[in-house]
Amino acid sequence: MATPLRSEGQARAGGREGADRQASPERRRWVWAFADGDGKDKRTLGGKGANLCEMTQIGLNVPPGFVVTTGACLAYLESRELPLGLMDQVREEVAVLERATSKRFGGAEDPLLVSVRSGSAMSMPGMMDTILDLGLNQESLAGLIEDTGDPRFGYDAYRRFIQLFGKVALGIPDELFDDQFDSVKELAGAESDVDLGAEELEKVAGRFLRVVRRHTGAAFPADPYEQLEIAIKAVFGSWMGKRALDYRREFGVTSEMANGTAANVVTMVFGNMGSDSATGVAFTRNPGTGEKELYGEYLLNAQGEDVVAGIRTPKAVQELAGEMPEMYGQLEELSEKLERHYREVQDFEFTIEKGMLYCLQTRAGKMNASAMVRTSVEMEGEDLIDRRAALLRVMPEYLEQMLYPRLDPAFRGDPIATGLAASPGAASGKAVFDADRAQALGRQGEAVILVREETKPEDIHGFFAARAILTSRGGKTSHAAVVARGMGKPCVAGAEGLTVDVRLRELIAGEVVVKEGDVLTIDGTTGNIYLGEIPMVEADFSEELETLLRWADEAARLKVMANADTPEDARRAIKYGAMGIGLCRTERMFNAPERLPIVVDMIIAKDEEQRSAALSRLQPMQRDDFKQLFKVMSPRPVTIRLLDPPIHEFLPEQARLEDEIRHLRQLRRAVCGLEVLTAGVSSVESETPAASRLPEIVTELADTRQVDVAIARKEAILARARELRETNPMLGHRGVRLGLTYPEIYKMQVCAILEAAAECLRDGIDVHAQIMVPQVCTVQELMRVGGYVREASAAVEEKYGVSVDFEFGTMMEVVRACLRAESLAEVADFFSFGTNDLTQATFSFSREDAENKFLPLYNELGILQDNPFEVLDRLGLGRMMALTVEWGRSRKPELEVGICGEHGGHPASIRFCHEIGLDYVSCSPPRVPVARLAAAHANIMV
Amino acid sequence: MATPLRSEGQARAGGREGADRQASPERRRWVWAFADGDGKDKRTLGGKGANLCEMTQIGLNVPPGFVVTTGACLAYLESRELPLGLMDQVREEVAVLERATSKRFGGAEDPLLVSVRSGSAMSMPGMMDTILDLGLNQESLAGLIEDTGDPRFGYDAYRRFIQLFGKVALGIPDELFDDQFDSVKELAGAESDVDLGAEELEKVAGRFLRVVRRHTGAAFPADPYEQLEIAIKAVFGSWMGKRALDYRREFGVTSEMANGTAANVVTMVFGNMGSDSATGVAFTRNPGTGEKELYGEYLLNAQGEDVVAGIRTPKAVQELAGEMPEMYGQLEELSEKLERHYREVQDFEFTIEKGMLYCLQTRAGKMNASAMVRTSVEMEGEDLIDRRAALLRVMPEYLEQMLYPRLDPAFRGDPIATGLAASPGAASGKAVFDADRAQALGRQGEAVILVREETKPEDIHGFFAARAILTSRGGKTSHAAVVARGMGKPCVAGAEGLTVDVRLRELIAGEVVVKEGDVLTIDGTTGNIYLGEIPMVEADFSEELETLLRWADEAARLKVMANADTPEDARRAIKYGAMGIGLCRTERMFNAPERLPIVVDMIIAKDEEQRSAALSRLQPMQRDDFKQLFKVMSPRPVTIRLLDPPIHEFLPEQARLEDEIRHLRQLRRAVCGLEVLTAGVSSVESETPAASRLPEIVTELADTRQVDVAIARKEAILARARELRETNPMLGHRGVRLGLTYPEIYKMQVCAILEAAAECLRDGIDVHAQIMVPQVCTVQELMRVGGYVREASAAVEEKYGVSVDFEFGTMMEVVRACLRAESLAEVADFFSFGTNDLTQATFSFSREDAENKFLPLYNELGILQDNPFEVLDRLGLGRMMALTVEWGRSRKPELEVGICGEHGGHPASIRFCHEIGLDYVSCSPPRVPVARLAAAHANIMV
Repeated sequence: MATPLRSEGQARAGGREGADRQASPERRRWVWAFADGDGKDKRTLGGKGANLCEMTQIGLNVPPGFVVTTGACLAYLESRELPLGLMDQVREEVAVLERATSKRFGGAEDPLLVSVRSGSAMSMPGMMDTILDLGLNQESLAGLIEDTGDPRFGYDAYRRFIQLFGKVALGIPDELFDDQFDSVKELAGAESDVDLGAEELEKVAGRFLRVVRRHTGAAFPADPYEQLEIAIKAVFGSWMGKRALDYRREFGVTSEMANGTAANVVTMVFGNMGSDSATGVAFTRNPGTGEKELYGEYLLNAQGEDVVAGIRTPKAVQELAGEMPEMYGQLEELSEKLERHYREVQDFEFTIEKGMLYCLQTRAGKMNASAMVRTSVEMEGEDLIDRRAALLRVMPEYLEQMLYPRLDPAFRGDPIATGLAASPGAASGKAVFDADRAQALGRQGEAVILVREETKPEDIHGFFAARAILTSRGGKTSHAAVVARGMGKPCVAGAEGLTVDVRLRELIAGEVVVKEGDVLTIDGTTGNIYLGEIPMVEADFSEELETLLRWADEAARLKVMANADTPEDARRAIKYGAMGIGLCRTERMFNAPERLPIVVDMIIAKDEEQRSAALSRLQPMQRDDFKQLFKVMSPRPVTIRLLDPPIHEFLPEQARLEDEIRHLRQLRRAVCGLEVLTAGVSSVESETPAASRLPEIVTELADTRQVDVAIARKEAILARARELRETNPMLGHRGVRLGLTYPEIYKMQVCAILEAAAECLRDGIDVHAQIMVPQVCTVQELMRVGGYVREASAAVEEKYGVSVDFEFGTMMEVVRACLRAESLAEVADFFSFGTNDLTQATFSFSREDAENKFLPLYNELGILQDNPFEVLDRLGLGRMMALTVEWGRSRKPELEVGICGEHGGHPASIRFCHEIGLDYVSCSPPRVPVARLAAAHANIMV
Repeated sequence: MATPLRSEGQARAGGREGADRQASPERRRWVWAFADGDGKDKRTLGGKGANLCEMTQIGLNVPPGFVVTTGACLAYLESRELPLGLMDQVREEVAVLERATSKRFGGAEDPLLVSVRSGSAMSMPGMMDTILDLGLNQESLAGLIEDTGDPRFGYDAYRRFIQLFGKVALGIPDELFDDQFDSVKELAGAESDVDLGAEELEKVAGRFLRVVRRHTGAAFPADPYEQLEIAIKAVFGSWMGKRALDYRREFGVTSEMANGTAANVVTMVFGNMGSDSATGVAFTRNPGTGEKELYGEYLLNAQGEDVVAGIRTPKAVQELAGEMPEMYGQLEELSEKLERHYREVQDFEFTIEKGMLYCLQTRAGKMNASAMVRTSVEMEGEDLIDRRAALLRVMPEYLEQMLYPRLDPAFRGDPIATGLAASPGAASGKAVFDADRAQALGRQGEAVILVREETKPEDIHGFFAARAILTSRGGKTSHAAVVARGMGKPCVAGAEGLTVDVRLRELIAGEVVVKEGDVLTIDGTTGNIYLGEIPMVEADFSEELETLLRWADEAARLKVMANADTPEDARRAIKYGAMGIGLCRTERMFNAPERLPIVVDMIIAKDEEQRSAALSRLQPMQRDDFKQLFKVMSPRPVTIRLLDPPIHEFLPEQARLEDEIRHLRQLRRAVCGLEVLTAGVSSVESETPAASRLPEIVTELADTRQVDVAIARKEAILARARELRETNPMLGHRGVRLGLTYPEIYKMQVCAILEAAAECLRDGIDVHAQIMVPQVCTVQELMRVGGYVREASAAVEEKYGVSVDFEFGTMMEVVRACLRAESLAEVADFFSFGTNDLTQATFSFSREDAENKFLPLYNELGILQDNPFEVLDRLGLGRMMALTVEWGRSRKPELEVGICGEHGGHPASIRFCHEIGLDYVSCSPPRVPVARLAAAHANIMV
């Protein structure tokens, strides 16, 4: 990308500065004209100065000017004196300006005015403000008035200059000027600044000069060079000002990185010198759509401040074509030149002074994601950039906003509460407080949002029915968050400002009470919750995005898989360009509403026989699940993880069960005592609601045995739930540990997978099944499950007469598995890092507890830079992963290694996965495009 | 340890076997006389054969015999033919026997009888039984009867031989013989075998011969060589028998390790040949006390079987000195010879046949721990063994039984239940069901056992008062177990067969109901629980043990520290020889009954100010704790760990709080309604107990405000407890995470430590304080706490005018800390592996859940050989530890590294710690001697 111009430039300034360091101060070069400074040497010239040099040198019409270097700043800060010779060099450069503009600095005719502003290598707020119109004094003011024929313009500029210079360069409190100004306004009976005429403004200027004299004990400096020297010193001094120091400390900017500030001196140009003058800002392409068209706005006969102040409404830049066709042509040329040079969409400022177009500033244009994508693809088509550059200029994270519906960016309302942004996207719908009702309304075609304190597997039918999920408890890995992410539905979790009262069916947020049926909008990308329906912007998956991602796939080495549990997920994954399924969580199939009761039967089974009976009812269902998945994904690989969560997760909460049993018992007693009660009803003084419901109860419960059966079942479930309780469920009886204690479960699953594959093969559908075992910590575990698989495989081959090819692998989500990588590699065809669990185990952080209790503080104190559950911890976990890959491949060089934790969709983490040689990443479908681009970035940048 | 004799022997047989492999079968040597075989070559001769050779060659009077090699066995198994030439070699050796004994094999006069038995290199049950009296037939039987003058003896031997040979060598079912025998007994009207005379036994023999003929279709082999050949084949064949194969598979004996079996042919000798014959067993030293004296028993005129059968009561071996002084002298000589040769206490069998002493077998004597220790020290004194050998012959684990009181080994009762052996030692006492009662009774000097479902920190005063702890829930790391181990009190935890009903104050174990006050005995070494008081044996710490452990310290490289939290612990640690405190858990100091309320204040504090107020009340207490510790341990190092557990552990259970609040509210209502109620009392029909208590309540609660205050406090605690609830407390808000979110706590602790040290120094007491931070996972955490320490150190120096020298280090109990060892080493002076937590994190096993739910199955299936919480997992965790040490020392070579998890007291784990270069291990005081010996072993054996 280095152009000859640049290298030349670098050599020039770099060489000089090197030589200059040896030179005596007065011989050292402190000042660079825009025409000479090296546009790449931000260190010496500051960002702004370098940019002005660059623009000048590529032939843009930049108002002439020069830069006083950061070196001068450092020298000044050391001695509090400007270096010897500096002002001489400044005078020389001013003379150059005078020649170029045919004006005179401080002259009574055609006076040359300049602006002075700071500019360091890094963008750094808190530095000195700009001083405009420097060079004005009584004489040059007269010249200015003569030039413009507008005394009000002249006096206005003058009084502004005195105040700004007084404040910024002389340190005079602003309010001293403001008081004077107000008093003149009062005298004149003026309401606003614009009501003041030339005469009043002249009076203001006079009073301002007195303020300066009173405050400094000296007259306002009339000599323009004296003004300039003071201004340069002020710029330099502001580098060590409190605001700048605070900023650098806050953002950890070291003195090595921050090298002082330069001072930029630029000829003033005026867009308000008549109807042949104007000022505006423009983008070289439309930043909203990416379309190749000049985009921006301008004001005729106005200054930049007028655009900002919003007193007059600017016009679209295209109108300039009618008003000043010549100028518009130049503007288009300028736009073209800028893009050709910067090879990037530019956001630039321009001023037209008396028919002369000046470019004052340019920078890379900020755009939304779809505009970035479109411009990338089109600029590649125009040979402005190559494909690598086209890929690199789009930040992967940025893509995500293209893939979810989102709130209209124009919307400006206040949320009623904010929770965790648990699953991106936005949705509106009626608030409902339980899953049954969500299902009922959903079936009627209503848009609903499921609102719960927290969700449980038994709420799953509510998830299917709802547009979005909102909970008041739980973190980013809560059931609600995980399931919603998997389904690609928006979710705001753990909105602690809310009180959810399921019994009253209402939601309280401060003073707002939301009743069931009231419409809410939630934004899972920000965590915001709004009352009512908020306008949305639909997701787009444009042709340009398809193109860009195709390039990304070509440029990447890492493959990108999706985490997908259902055929719908799988179809979405393919739409997003997934190259296979890297993680199919079979437990999700257990959660379907018609299956959960069977799963519960399986869990409360008294012996293996009962358990097997329940499992044999589940098996055909799972087989069909897998068959559909295989069909959708064919011929791509499908990695199926055997059951992972502890089985108690499939049971209702204990408290809820206890409640239900209590209620059922009451009912039982009520039914038994029905006769007695019914007899007594007539004697009850008033017809109480309870009494009036009795006949209803009689009808509902003809037979108490129904209730007895229900009680017995609930009690069995409760007893089992108590038995299964765990102190640390995260480290509990789950994954392969469960699979080995209840071998029937894994055997059923393995059989369902292989039968599904066999049936597909028989139907001519190409299948690549990968069976994956979770929570493995020893090779013996893997070997045992391998035994089940071989057994099932032989049985399936016999039953179907086809031989199913499959791979057998292990999750790497237990630290010990990593430490035993060589042994595991002997048995496993592939490893898949489960970095969610592995992060918890590596840090000894329980994610839910950590995110609620101490992680925010850790980030605040800088103990951890990131949330390790979002950004893969390279230093710790990453080291373990790199060693694991090395150890595993040392035993089996062809070992396939991937990652299927949440980090698999995070760009920085993907880059790390690339670096340590993983073969694939797997993430939720909507993150697949992000991952594809990130994978390309990783391979291009390494 | 290799003696010249051995190397010579090895060279001999090894060389020959090597040469023999090349030789043709008939030239190969298949048979070794006891006088020639290499006593060290168990692989060729089997264990038994080699031993018989060895004894013969060192001049013991072993009945002559020979070994048919394992090589012959393997050859036989291949072809099912004995190798060519083998029987010729056997005949040659029998001829040698005949010459040596002046008897004839199968001869009618002085018949030579032999036994044939198997013997492989490894002890392997399930192999062929011994055949005795081989060589008997009609002719030799007559000779035997003539020799002994005892026809009954002769026929008895004959019928036994036929049955044994028939069963073992010919494969005839035992019951065929038994039926015949029973029928003869019936005919004779005999009740027992001994009631049969010579005549009946002759009849039995005759019937047995017919059984053989019927079953095999051939006559019982009369030719003694034929008998011998069949017997040898049977021995060899049994190597591939079902029992042997099962055994080898069960115990994972590979064919490489198990090399076939040898067959041993030994001349029969008889201790029942008259009053100058006898048989017995003896130890060269007393195995109960270790005293140097012949110890054993014998029977005159009896066979070995008689001693086993227990029909006659044997005499103490010393009595032989009176009965057969000459023989006794020889026996003493034999004993001396055996020890001189084997350099180990021997347990040997002897037979005296007509005034001739034979040694039939010898092996190392099994002894209890104190006898092992005493003999080790005494044998070293006698120059029998050197110190290394003296140390190595005592297994470290074995020492533990010397250090706890234990049940009298003679006791033979059945436990009423069994739980987890959570803290070793045994104790008897009255069962009490709450801590308050335990304290009350304890103060009265009663021995009590605290029985709970599970314990909580608030039960701590009950621990102090109780002799032992028994719980029906929780594992080996439950609160009860950990605290009891720390205090060195016996504990049985998680006895799930028990139902503890605290309200009824009873314990139900099956049909046994134990009421409060009933006496229980629990054995924390086995987990057994007994009804009533069981006799105990006191712990002993003998002079010999002191000597041995002194030698151990000299031989070891690893230092041994103790985990000790109180001055009492510390004194015990010193008694047990600890070289310092490797882990002082400061939370234990929070648990003391008078402090817990302050700790609760600290926890429920609404802001930093309230929290600091509570902490400032705790600080002087902690300072005094530390001062006392420092004094006791001076000048040894004391390592103090800052607060580790999550603070909710200091709060009562939520359910209990809810109960208490409910009760208090009832009380409140009762008190409010008192007036109404009291008025109503008179109108209550009968004087109910509730009504009668009313005046009492009035007296107790003059003021309802007391109740209100109590309710408010309980509610505050409950609210906080709910707030602090965690999903996975093991991975929760604890250790340094807590220390950084509530910096006041750690600051208080650090200050207390340094002030205590300063006060000690001022008093001339040498202090080596080490401050240790728990749960560290990033270097930033350590640096922050380091900041607190520096701050406190400066303050203390200013306050006391002394500079306290201390070290600052980190626990290594989080995987990420290990992975960041280099960085941590830059900040830490020392690392201390906390392998309890580290094991949990490495395996992703929650210990409590794992030990209850799946670890037993994992051990049973062989997925894990050991419980990784008891035996350090070398392959996984060990690899991480070794890397950590390497990484840490790469940055700081002088880094001190130790271990303070439970594994620090486990010998195999200690050996591993030695191997990876740790500097010290730290364990509970009673395990210190075990660890000292294990540390010596590690250094000697490496």
